[in-house]
Amino acid sequence: MQAWQFTEVGKALTRNEIPVPEAGPGEIVIEVRAAGLCHSDVGFLDGTLTALLPFRPITLGHEIAGVVAATGPGAARFAVGDRVAVPAAIEGPGTSSNGGFQPKVAVREDLVIPLPEGIAWDQAAAATDAGLTSYHAMVVQGRVSAGTKVGVIGFGGLGSLGAQVALAEGAEVYVAEKNEKVHAFARELGVAEVAKDITAFADEGLDVVVDFAGFGTTTAAAVETVRRDGRVVQVGLGVSEGTVNLQTLTLNQVTLIGSQAGSAEDCRAVLDLVAAGKVTSRITRIGFDDIADGIGRLERGEVIGRLVAVVE
Amino acid sequence: MQAWQFTEVGKALTRNEIPVPEAGPGEIVIEVRAAGLCHSDVGFLDGTLTALLPFRPITLGHEIAGVVAATGPGAARFAVGDRVAVPAAIEGPGTSSNGGFQPKVAVREDLVIPLPEGIAWDQAAAATDAGLTSYHAMVVQGRVSAGTKVGVIGFGGLGSLGAQVALAEGAEVYVAEKNEKVHAFARELGVAEVAKDITAFADEGLDVVVDFAGFGTTTAAAVETVRRDGRVVQVGLGVSEGTVNLQTLTLNQVTLIGSQAGSAEDCRAVLDLVAAGKVTSRITRIGFDDIADGIGRLERGEVIGRLVAVVE
Repeated sequence: MQAWQFTEVGKALTRNEIPVPEAGPGEIVIEVRAAGLCHSDVGFLDGTLTALLPFRPITLGHEIAGVVAATGPGAARFAVGDRVAVPAAIEGPGTSSNGGFQPKVAVREDLVIPLPEGIAWDQAAAATDAGLTSYHAMVVQGRVSAGTKVGVIGFGGLGSLGAQVALAEGAEVYVAEKNEKVHAFARELGVAEVAKDITAFADEGLDVVVDFAGFGTTTAAAVETVRRDGRVVQVGLGVSEGTVNLQTLTLNQVTLIGSQAGSAEDCRAVLDLVAAGKVTSRITRIGFDDIADGIGRLERGEVIGRLVAVVE
Repeated sequence: MQAWQFTEVGKALTRNEIPVPEAGPGEIVIEVRAAGLCHSDVGFLDGTLTALLPFRPITLGHEIAGVVAATGPGAARFAVGDRVAVPAAIEGPGTSSNGGFQPKVAVREDLVIPLPEGIAWDQAAAATDAGLTSYHAMVVQGRVSAGTKVGVIGFGGLGSLGAQVALAEGAEVYVAEKNEKVHAFARELGVAEVAKDITAFADEGLDVVVDFAGFGTTTAAAVETVRRDGRVVQVGLGVSEGTVNLQTLTLNQVTLIGSQAGSAEDCRAVLDLVAAGKVTSRITRIGFDDIADGIGRLERGEVIGRLVAVVE
């Protein structure tokens, strides 16, 4: 069986022949139907995130959807043939064990969740990471629900998913995105307003602003824009440090909340929204043969939306 | 009746003869027993906060404790002789109407709360502002309760009250204060540890850090020091802007919470703690004749603890 594996920093993924995995105690084997490529994979290759990988060569691919092919001793949560996904997690496949860039992958069954009916493989894979992160930021950390007025900064992959999640929850969504080319897309989704800068919505009394860009300046603008007692959720990591007006934060009792990844619970919730057609990732599909090339495309910033390798 | 009134920016309070106030509809008249002097009073005089005052001359004094002397039409919450306090509030006396630096003051009864048994007048007055602010930061915004590990940055007036509130709630308190002269006082209160810098407690897994200093650098250090999913409460306004590591905030899911003043509810709660002997303000008592001088002492930074004018 062939697997796309990381071997050393600065080198592209290499295709290695490895044994077909067997399901150990508490594990299941998933036949991979779709595996998403992620900017974290670029980070594993370029040295930024490499320290997280416990061994090498290791198969990358932490956005996995597929079918249960085998169950190991003591693994009783799933049956062969079940459609499942693996919420992206540091302790999961593609980071702490061999991942989804190989035809079959062994996974601890407690890290796996069932897929709802009627969801496409590529959409399921994309939801396990970008979807879960957006959902966690919006609903868990941002507490966005019906009637919430929410500002979304950055309308790239995460931001557009976050906006859809907020709309699905019944929120009123205001999008700030420097790149005017995507404004039309935001309007099509049914957001209330679109502008280049979040400060354009200073008079709207936004309850929450979720910053998917994270350029420091965006955080500062969010703190200035959100209403008194409002919340700013920080997801994006465009820069490491940001200068914020602490006087405004204090006097307006603004809460600035960090949001990182999400839980299996968040993944289930966003998968339900995807299955219901309320949240859709923009996906560029590639074949499994093209995974190493795909990482290169991500690195060069050539991809709009998520890149997902699918088994046709 | 003589009142200490603000007339114009840059001029000391002047003592003016004014009519004894009567209780209008929904109002009570309080015979003032103690009125605290506050750094905000300095701000009203020096121009910083003057815009908040709706008319002039206006009697300052927004930290009021006293006895009900009269009740107006429709005012039924209190009876003549009741011991009461007025939680500091922008819509209250000393900011939006004549305040407590005069022998009797008319106040909307909905802005007044009863005093618990056994509380001294000066302690009651001090609790209406510094006490309420510390309580609000610690218990409401910081959600400190029994067993919480809480860091306190700055052990001045607010910080020492905040630490006492946290101890009264059963929290484990770690104090960071640059001025080593007050370390002994912190230890006497029964805090777990005292250091010059909050980062000394980085291994303690602090649930909450409350920053009463607000020098930006303290906020940044608090974000670095608090545990994953921890809270940093910003109270102090030492500087207007601060640079924070947003990557740490995001990846550790730290919440940075602004805290400003407090509610009547918070004031009742802290008055109960004061009455129970669990929270005590350090107070320098002066006479009513010395109020204008007292503001000068505050302005020159000559006062340790709170300055309270008391009727002997």
